[in-house]
Amino acid sequence: MHFITNNLVVLNLLQRLRYSKFPQNFPRISKAFQILYYLSSNPQKTKNHCTQLSILLPNKLYQEKIQFLVKMSNLKSKFFEVYDVLKAELLNDPAFDFTDDSRQWVERMLDYNVPGGKCNRGLSVIDSYRLLKEEKELSEDEIFLACVIGWCIEWLQAYFLVLDDIMDNSHTRRGQPCWFRQPKVGMIAVNDGILLRNHIGQILKKHFRDKPYYADLLDLFNEVECQTACGQMIDLITTHLGQNDLSKYSLDDHRRIVVYKTAFYSFYLPVACALLMAGENLDDHSNAKNILLEMGNYFQVQDDYLDCFGDPEVIGKIGTDIEDYKCSWLVVKAMELCNKEQMKLLNENYGKDDPSCVAKVKDLYNTLKLQDVYLEYERKSYEKLNEEIEAHPSRAVQAVLKSFLAKIYKRLK
Amino acid sequence: MHFITNNLVVLNLLQRLRYSKFPQNFPRISKAFQILYYLSSNPQKTKNHCTQLSILLPNKLYQEKIQFLVKMSNLKSKFFEVYDVLKAELLNDPAFDFTDDSRQWVERMLDYNVPGGKCNRGLSVIDSYRLLKEEKELSEDEIFLACVIGWCIEWLQAYFLVLDDIMDNSHTRRGQPCWFRQPKVGMIAVNDGILLRNHIGQILKKHFRDKPYYADLLDLFNEVECQTACGQMIDLITTHLGQNDLSKYSLDDHRRIVVYKTAFYSFYLPVACALLMAGENLDDHSNAKNILLEMGNYFQVQDDYLDCFGDPEVIGKIGTDIEDYKCSWLVVKAMELCNKEQMKLLNENYGKDDPSCVAKVKDLYNTLKLQDVYLEYERKSYEKLNEEIEAHPSRAVQAVLKSFLAKIYKRLK
Repeated sequence: MHFITNNLVVLNLLQRLRYSKFPQNFPRISKAFQILYYLSSNPQKTKNHCTQLSILLPNKLYQEKIQFLVKMSNLKSKFFEVYDVLKAELLNDPAFDFTDDSRQWVERMLDYNVPGGKCNRGLSVIDSYRLLKEEKELSEDEIFLACVIGWCIEWLQAYFLVLDDIMDNSHTRRGQPCWFRQPKVGMIAVNDGILLRNHIGQILKKHFRDKPYYADLLDLFNEVECQTACGQMIDLITTHLGQNDLSKYSLDDHRRIVVYKTAFYSFYLPVACALLMAGENLDDHSNAKNILLEMGNYFQVQDDYLDCFGDPEVIGKIGTDIEDYKCSWLVVKAMELCNKEQMKLLNENYGKDDPSCVAKVKDLYNTLKLQDVYLEYERKSYEKLNEEIEAHPSRAVQAVLKSFLAKIYKRLK
Repeated sequence: MHFITNNLVVLNLLQRLRYSKFPQNFPRISKAFQILYYLSSNPQKTKNHCTQLSILLPNKLYQEKIQFLVKMSNLKSKFFEVYDVLKAELLNDPAFDFTDDSRQWVERMLDYNVPGGKCNRGLSVIDSYRLLKEEKELSEDEIFLACVIGWCIEWLQAYFLVLDDIMDNSHTRRGQPCWFRQPKVGMIAVNDGILLRNHIGQILKKHFRDKPYYADLLDLFNEVECQTACGQMIDLITTHLGQNDLSKYSLDDHRRIVVYKTAFYSFYLPVACALLMAGENLDDHSNAKNILLEMGNYFQVQDDYLDCFGDPEVIGKIGTDIEDYKCSWLVVKAMELCNKEQMKLLNENYGKDDPSCVAKVKDLYNTLKLQDVYLEYERKSYEKLNEEIEAHPSRAVQAVLKSFLAKIYKRLK
């Protein structure tokens, strides 16, 4: 059984609907389009809308996609039910004597920060665990526990995002104001970040204390959190302190930042959790770890590429890496390829919040044919990753890695 | 063997020197005074100076105190040696591929934030562990491990302080600018806080992974961290959001904030760590836990009292709780005792950064005889704590609790 994220399916459908010539009945398709678009940002509500979609799009191909959406939707509702269970447990934890005010505060903070993302990381724990168990169907209890760990990763992500937004002085996150910008929150958000991190320990203790792999699970979360914080540190030191000196950015730096800051917790952690649940020893899986970190690197390069060359309507935001002086794969690659004169132009225009400067940087990217360089990078990465996966001794682990690669290869958002 | 903190000894000596009529040879005493004062803030250097002190103060009573200082100094040097070991391990951790810049950053951050305090919490782990083992001398290895856990508590404290200072927008800490106010640090301090927390996991994994109580140790640190963050949360919600409404403060709120925010990690945690090292099950020690939390509460009430009525030269700072609208034990007690008119005066003058307002509040405290109320509270608390300790079934645990109580009873700083 193979699970791809809801969003990818919706996106495929959207692309089909938008870029093929609409065959018949435009208003009906248009309505379906609206529903699909809505679903992509409200996955919890997929199920209700699938019935509507079946009526609007009676075509067989769409029907299959819709069946898939229903299946995914069942898993997602299950996943979101577990969120409610975990939240209720935390709000009634006997280790803390909550006042009404503080209980309300925590509930609002959780609802605002934890479940609003795409939940790819959390859901991929269940996906990976299922693939590792090969033919066997997961029991209700196993699905529940996989969801619990999945949510721990979502909690970890929420913790990073709440604090990163403070450090970066950001304005919006997931389409709403950053938590620390909410009225009456401000710097209390720092403590909320700590609480989010602490909840992981409480959740794991409640549900995994008697498992033989409990200590490994705690160690794993600690180690990955530490690697992420180290990645954030070199990003902050290199990017923020390196301001006004592009030459400080190298491809090595870029890779190091990406692997530590993103790949460990987004790619390695979900699989490592699933491996522990399946009774594996993580020391035996350094091979899979390296492949996943490489995938994480590839994923971030895509992200950097899409920030500049992606369709803002599809990625859901207008990229500002150039204005923000980001250590993006594109600028690092451009520096590798450009001559002295072009380097001067880059230095003069990168990191300026002025549309004409941004345009000059983009023109340079085009002159250097960075789109082709990227496509070549993508092709090679995919080939290499595929080869490495094929060479992996375990078929079950292969299936997990292939599932991850399928989710990200040639993504448009 | 009984260990009292260096500071308390130095303080006793200082008091003797200052308040008794100097018997003879003023310049010599004065020099000794300077050395002692220096020692109280530089405990690492105690040993070298003790030789000088012996020459300056040949009196027998002083000699005994000096012998004690030497013993304490040996323990402290041992403790500080362990800091160097732990720091070196963290800076060479193979789980992260440090750049030179990032290694330097972490080293500077650690030296700035971790070892600059009085280390009472850390040292009391060794003290408690020794008392729990009763007659048996600790082996070198046991002392080392107790120091390691002691440092974990100091790391935890550093983590809280770095982040608390950001949340409170503070200016100085331990006599130097807050870390986030250092040039080039700023909001990177949030990530440094996270790193400090993560180091605890790394340190414990390195030195305790094979101990039977390893998972209990991780659970303990997680739970206590969570309780501290919850305490900080209710403090922030009550104090910061309750601004302009004194009536929101009650003795119950004060106690809840203090117990969660301070008592768990300062009083319970060191003893709980020692109990785990001694092979005890923490579920069997809820009695000791409650006594320690009560002591923590008493300690904070002292702190609130000293902020207003202590000698600034002795406590090393000028208290500003009144100006800062702090939910102090004194203001809560004052509200309990005052009439309508006095309440009006309190409302009008509390939390104002104006010396005449502060003076009015202090006058009211005197009118209400808060110093006597405090002395009565102190007497009763001490009596009650002593009774509870005497009733404890284990002599070893009794000794631990008595050692803590002796450290804080009637303290002047």
